[in-house]
Amino acid sequence: MGDVIATYQVYARPGSLEKKAEDIALGLTIGSWTALPLLEQKQLLKHKGRVTALQEFYDDEHPNRFGEVRCEISIAYPTYNFTFDIPAILTTVFGKLSLDGEVKLLNLEFDNEDLSRFPGPKFGIKNIRSKLNIQDRPLLMSIFKGIIGRDIHFLREQLRDQAMGGVDIVKDDEILFDVNISFEDRIIAGKEILDEVYEKTGKRTLYAVNLSGRTMDLVDKAKHASELGADALLFNVHTYGLDMLQTLAENNEVQLPIMAHPAYSGAYTSSNFYGVAPDLLLGNLTRLAGADFSLFPSPYGSVAMEKEKTLAIARQLTEENGLNQAFPVPSAGIHPGLVPLLYHDFGNDCIINAGGGVHGHPEGAAAGVRAFRQAIDHVIQQNTHRATKAQELEAALAKWGGTS
Amino acid sequence: MGDVIATYQVYARPGSLEKKAEDIALGLTIGSWTALPLLEQKQLLKHKGRVTALQEFYDDEHPNRFGEVRCEISIAYPTYNFTFDIPAILTTVFGKLSLDGEVKLLNLEFDNEDLSRFPGPKFGIKNIRSKLNIQDRPLLMSIFKGIIGRDIHFLREQLRDQAMGGVDIVKDDEILFDVNISFEDRIIAGKEILDEVYEKTGKRTLYAVNLSGRTMDLVDKAKHASELGADALLFNVHTYGLDMLQTLAENNEVQLPIMAHPAYSGAYTSSNFYGVAPDLLLGNLTRLAGADFSLFPSPYGSVAMEKEKTLAIARQLTEENGLNQAFPVPSAGIHPGLVPLLYHDFGNDCIINAGGGVHGHPEGAAAGVRAFRQAIDHVIQQNTHRATKAQELEAALAKWGGTS
Ligand SMILES: [Mg+2]
Ligand SMILES: [Mg+2]
Repeated sequence: MGDVIATYQVYARPGSLEKKAEDIALGLTIGSWTALPLLEQKQLLKHKGRVTALQEFYDDEHPNRFGEVRCEISIAYPTYNFTFDIPAILTTVFGKLSLDGEVKLLNLEFDNEDLSRFPGPKFGIKNIRSKLNIQDRPLLMSIFKGIIGRDIHFLREQLRDQAMGGVDIVKDDEILFDVNISFEDRIIAGKEILDEVYEKTGKRTLYAVNLSGRTMDLVDKAKHASELGADALLFNVHTYGLDMLQTLAENNEVQLPIMAHPAYSGAYTSSNFYGVAPDLLLGNLTRLAGADFSLFPSPYGSVAMEKEKTLAIARQLTEENGLNQAFPVPSAGIHPGLVPLLYHDFGNDCIINAGGGVHGHPEGAAAGVRAFRQAIDHVIQQNTHRATKAQELEAALAKWGGTS
Repeated sequence: MGDVIATYQVYARPGSLEKKAEDIALGLTIGSWTALPLLEQKQLLKHKGRVTALQEFYDDEHPNRFGEVRCEISIAYPTYNFTFDIPAILTTVFGKLSLDGEVKLLNLEFDNEDLSRFPGPKFGIKNIRSKLNIQDRPLLMSIFKGIIGRDIHFLREQLRDQAMGGVDIVKDDEILFDVNISFEDRIIAGKEILDEVYEKTGKRTLYAVNLSGRTMDLVDKAKHASELGADALLFNVHTYGLDMLQTLAENNEVQLPIMAHPAYSGAYTSSNFYGVAPDLLLGNLTRLAGADFSLFPSPYGSVAMEKEKTLAIARQLTEENGLNQAFPVPSAGIHPGLVPLLYHDFGNDCIINAGGGVHGHPEGAAAGVRAFRQAIDHVIQQNTHRATKAQELEAALAKWGGTS
């Protein structure tokens, strides 16, 4: 058993931070040190938090507090102090501390032995690519639109349209719950439609169905989805907690890739001064807990995140750490004209995810999907030879613009 | 079925917000409206989000963006759109929106019928007071200190000391997990010590044991605690999600009051621009989900929260809404000299909660408890007659200062 190293951002006057850092390291572990008798120090040493790094960035001043600069503190927390579950880890490293003024949790590092105690993605990029038999390009995903209040026929039509266009994955909207159309009915209808399209076109489309409801029902629902032949689960993990994602990922009767939706995560990743860094939450922890896909705002769309932050998320999802890789899914406001930028930033192993950019195509959703597929092909082919743009893509570029 | 009304804070130029508010109301419900055929508008009307209020505070300008003022938008979300669970509600009202720039969720309002679908506190202030047979004063709680890495004998001694001083409740530290001393052993030892103290002194002390571990084990652990005769559960709800608190509160085999710890909540309540208002999270939702006690930083201690925010939390925990009331527990850095301030702010129905302020007393933890009990008695008696200060209180005031 090793340490979990947590890195924090705080602002302080240069040279003033050492004591505060030591206080955190002690306060979140054994409480006090210097006052203890030598024998007790010896007994408690393996439980003691230690400051392992302290950096001051002199040119990065606080926007509102004169003389304070950005600092990063790293503290090693012995895993002896907690059961190895995410709630215990988060409580230890950022429980009380999250309430203690301007401090942001930037990252958590685990040694290799501890990393292997997390499930990671059950399928990961490699197995999802095999499922779809697509190796050499980003995948394309589209989203149902305006499904709330509609019936199963409306869903079937939309799903058929998107699949007929040749999309790789269709996902439920994250705000679609099991009211008008039940979870089970969506899975059954999805399977029927997608099998029918496969017979017609030879193209396999996966459907990620929104797993929602009460915490204690999720595992049974996920198992049932697995039995019914669902393709993948969408999961609003941040309204349940990362441990629930891990629970689903670890369950062997849930043989489905899990797509982590970032709903509600902005509540604790958006501030530059408080909360948790987006790449830690939507990258590192989401992957460790077992998501096969992680959605996050792209740098270009309607709901935008800074490019640097999105690249850090993608890095945490895909870098070598002994666990399967998870697909980065930069999302929101994506149209075909953005495909070259997304490809440039995220490379081959990402998912192009579009809602309005598919459904808003002048010739309908199937054409919208084709425009995206053409944009993807075009950007891939540009690497090898001069490609000509196809008709649906031209129409999309005329509507939304872009550099494809 | 009615609406859930969510109120948000945004900053905008006066007069510019109406369209944005409408876009949110539509975007988080049926997606589009004006483009729909009349028949579909008719079908979807009951699913449509509606802007119900829009206020601009002209004298409350954004600190960094010239000309933008603080605004509050209220939107009614039909409960037809979701299953009535907290993850679905949070995803609907603040899922994608939490990622969409500078927006803070201030409050959620439910109609009476919907309120009654939440469990609320199983015991509440009234039944906890009956359990302890204390009606006429704030309760006193103390916390174990420096328990990490220690053994059961250390815990027994500390618990006995605190109980012998006459404390009403002792709670585990939130960072004490089931490693060195098991959950079961703590409950059994706690019961033994506290029964022994009761026989000696006639004073009943309750022990809140930290319920931790994997999500799927929590209900069984809580039931087991109930069977073993535990007094109360401490729960780091924000690392699990509010639905898990609700699950514990709704379970009839868990006959224990639940104390919600605010660990990790600062990650999404601390920013003035992003996240969730502290009184919504630690007050309103914590009570609806079923906590009997809610801890939060007091305005006076080492980890401080603005007074106005702490009063708003206490209000949400105690105001009449048809559910039981939950105890406000202003915490962190409390010493006996602060008791008059806490009593002034939070009144009779609150809990005075101290760690260092008990254990750091010059004459030890039992004296530390007596000093607090004396401070409480003193402030109560001051309302009726002139009281004299007792010895332990004098020693505490000499050490920490204060106006008692
Ligand atoms: Mg959506
Ligand atoms: Mg503590």
